[in-house]
Amino acid sequence: MVYLTEDNIARIIKAIDNEEIFTWRELFLDLHPTDQVNLFKMLEPDRRRIIYRHLSSEEFADVFQGLEFREQKEVLLELEYPYAVGMLNNMYSDDAADFLGEIDDLTAKKFLENMDDEEAQDIQDLLEYPDETAGAIMTTEYVAVEAHETVAEVLEKLRAEAPDAETIYYLYVIDNNEKLVGVISLRDLIVAGLDQRIKEIMNTNAISVSVLKDQEEVAKVIKDYNFLAVPVVDSHGILMGIVTVDDVIDVLEEETTEDFGDISAARGAVDLDMVSMEAAKRRLPWLVLLLFIGMITAGIIGSFQETLGKFTILAIFIPLIAGMGGNIGTQSLAVVVRGLALEKFDRTRVVNLIKREVGTGIIIGVVCGVLVSLISQVVAGGHPILGFIVGFSLFCVLVVSTLIGTVIPLIIHYFKLDPAVASGPFITTVNDVVGLTIYFSIATMLLNYL
Amino acid sequence: MVYLTEDNIARIIKAIDNEEIFTWRELFLDLHPTDQVNLFKMLEPDRRRIIYRHLSSEEFADVFQGLEFREQKEVLLELEYPYAVGMLNNMYSDDAADFLGEIDDLTAKKFLENMDDEEAQDIQDLLEYPDETAGAIMTTEYVAVEAHETVAEVLEKLRAEAPDAETIYYLYVIDNNEKLVGVISLRDLIVAGLDQRIKEIMNTNAISVSVLKDQEEVAKVIKDYNFLAVPVVDSHGILMGIVTVDDVIDVLEEETTEDFGDISAARGAVDLDMVSMEAAKRRLPWLVLLLFIGMITAGIIGSFQETLGKFTILAIFIPLIAGMGGNIGTQSLAVVVRGLALEKFDRTRVVNLIKREVGTGIIIGVVCGVLVSLISQVVAGGHPILGFIVGFSLFCVLVVSTLIGTVIPLIIHYFKLDPAVASGPFITTVNDVVGLTIYFSIATMLLNYL
Repeated sequence: MVYLTEDNIARIIKAIDNEEIFTWRELFLDLHPTDQVNLFKMLEPDRRRIIYRHLSSEEFADVFQGLEFREQKEVLLELEYPYAVGMLNNMYSDDAADFLGEIDDLTAKKFLENMDDEEAQDIQDLLEYPDETAGAIMTTEYVAVEAHETVAEVLEKLRAEAPDAETIYYLYVIDNNEKLVGVISLRDLIVAGLDQRIKEIMNTNAISVSVLKDQEEVAKVIKDYNFLAVPVVDSHGILMGIVTVDDVIDVLEEETTEDFGDISAARGAVDLDMVSMEAAKRRLPWLVLLLFIGMITAGIIGSFQETLGKFTILAIFIPLIAGMGGNIGTQSLAVVVRGLALEKFDRTRVVNLIKREVGTGIIIGVVCGVLVSLISQVVAGGHPILGFIVGFSLFCVLVVSTLIGTVIPLIIHYFKLDPAVASGPFITTVNDVVGLTIYFSIATMLLNYL
Repeated sequence: MVYLTEDNIARIIKAIDNEEIFTWRELFLDLHPTDQVNLFKMLEPDRRRIIYRHLSSEEFADVFQGLEFREQKEVLLELEYPYAVGMLNNMYSDDAADFLGEIDDLTAKKFLENMDDEEAQDIQDLLEYPDETAGAIMTTEYVAVEAHETVAEVLEKLRAEAPDAETIYYLYVIDNNEKLVGVISLRDLIVAGLDQRIKEIMNTNAISVSVLKDQEEVAKVIKDYNFLAVPVVDSHGILMGIVTVDDVIDVLEEETTEDFGDISAARGAVDLDMVSMEAAKRRLPWLVLLLFIGMITAGIIGSFQETLGKFTILAIFIPLIAGMGGNIGTQSLAVVVRGLALEKFDRTRVVNLIKREVGTGIIIGVVCGVLVSLISQVVAGGHPILGFIVGFSLFCVLVVSTLIGTVIPLIIHYFKLDPAVASGPFITTVNDVVGLTIYFSIATMLLNYL
């Protein structure tokens, strides 16, 4: 197997252009599949067409399943129909299901009708599992063995099955009814004697996950136990497929993208391949909600209009007070959201976290409060009472905002409410409302009654 | 191997309490290492002390290396010194180095002096690599073979080395000078004939990474090629260690935590185990910076004080205008930061992204602008010109803020500047300044000159 270098890129492209089919085929097929994909992506449409003409649909399946969905859609338009069908027949079932699940239903249905029955059935089964479950991300290409087989027999079988299986490092032991009864790692197999039977060395306590298990929990199992794969079973314990560690890396990235969407109130819109209208549609609901909450700030300031009319100078610190509350709240939010993604929280952990955050808020509040009271006196031209109002308000706002940024995501999590509510923009907007109320209350009290 | 169930938790704890040492030892040691750790964490100090007394330091090493650093520090206080030294001798070198690298230098030095020379040397070597490099996260427990060996010889060797190696699924072929000359997977070995020589079947184009390579790039190699491990070499091509896929999952989580810290302007403080003072120290610099930028907003409003004096009602929309700019900017920021973490950006991609985001901003701007102009007329009691000012300002602010939220992180990335500057709070604060300037400029123009 060869990896991509500038040298072989040049050689392959030159051979394509010179129509030295044998040469470029050999060089291209010798590349690691990932690098076949990387090279293919560099080619202009004309050269790509030469690739389709001289690679079998089976050979091209390896390239196609390595592309992003956006690229797959483009490439599909360049393929002749029978070639595309052949290619789908030769893809891993999970990759083919991913692709057919994303394109429009009619086209997908037509492809499935034209594909080999067995492959089409496998894909149809996978497509029926709900999104983001073990069933939806598993592959059906695993190695199954039986308990009565000997190590020597299994090693012999592996030689034949190795090229097709997604992993051969775990072997799954099933009974006559295809029920999962044990697992054995290739490591254990190598260490065992050749004439030992599988049942003597297999681990009968295999950890498996249900087909309907959430993909994030599947990822957690593989991560916690440092597995390379985990078997997926139905409600009768029948082995349906496996999820491998490389799928888990993809799942973890997907979940991180979701967390980013949630924390920025852009749920489902953190995707570079979306058109403006679609992105706007997904982001608008949150922004409109925030707009209405934001109107509350207008109401609050309106209700203090008497104070504001007398002391217009108070207006100039509105964005500063509101903004700093939002900033520190966002920091606390990030700590909690990340913490929740990484570990389970019990009561002690929650109490300690709240204590820690409030402590942090107090320290930061003192420093920023003193700073701003000094600066604001300079800006406002020696107005000691104003300096005190701004500084003391900022202190109170920072402490309360830390608490809000910590507690709201914890409550959301506890009640399993919509996590996008615990977003930076949401916390910021809530802190605007709370912060301005504190600021104007303190100002009104001090300016009117002193 | 057995996994943790409520049943065996109860049995093990009962056996510990009844001092049935043989029983609980057998049950405990039969658990998967991850579950040994899970069970150990449930035990009270008294029961933990019984564990230390009756597990060898080698057996306990497996438990200790599965704990979080915070827990390791607590446990260390409960161990007798010679037992702790024995345990460190038996840990994987990367785990031992991680632990000793985190505790105070004096204690670490004393441990290293008392440990076995060879182990101590391995750890000392690992400790010398800079943080977050391949060298710092690699393990030295790999299987090395030589090119002239036969498959049968290697399989025989594997039986002996399997228990100690971190992975046996890739074998690394080295020459007399310990230079890496090839890699062979156990999969290839199984498929090959028993009397074939390694040099006939090994892959001489092994992808390796340098000891000083950034851990994030190492993770990317393993992820892109779906490797289970990647070899680490020094500048002479000498094999120094390997990084395995489970380490990569940890790296990816660490990097995500960093991204969360950056996006919330809380770099290095997204860690639940930090005390308030430490967290405040790390978060303060960003907040103070934001405080100073926030003072600009005070200056801007101050410079429009004449307009504001005449039309106090303008003040009530300050937080709404500023806040909405911050909200939409944070959404765009999340899209870009996540995009940059997942893929390489070329010029076309950047241009398309900016176009997409501005398009999204315009759509959202029109909707929110019309909405707010209608509502604000109600709130302000039928003031058509005010409604227009607020609505039109919000439209302009949303479009400009989208652009700022998209372009700033791209610039940061392009110039490799401090990424924490592209944080939600930073974008929000910049958008406050820009948004208020737009709002008051439009208001001053329309109110004074119409």
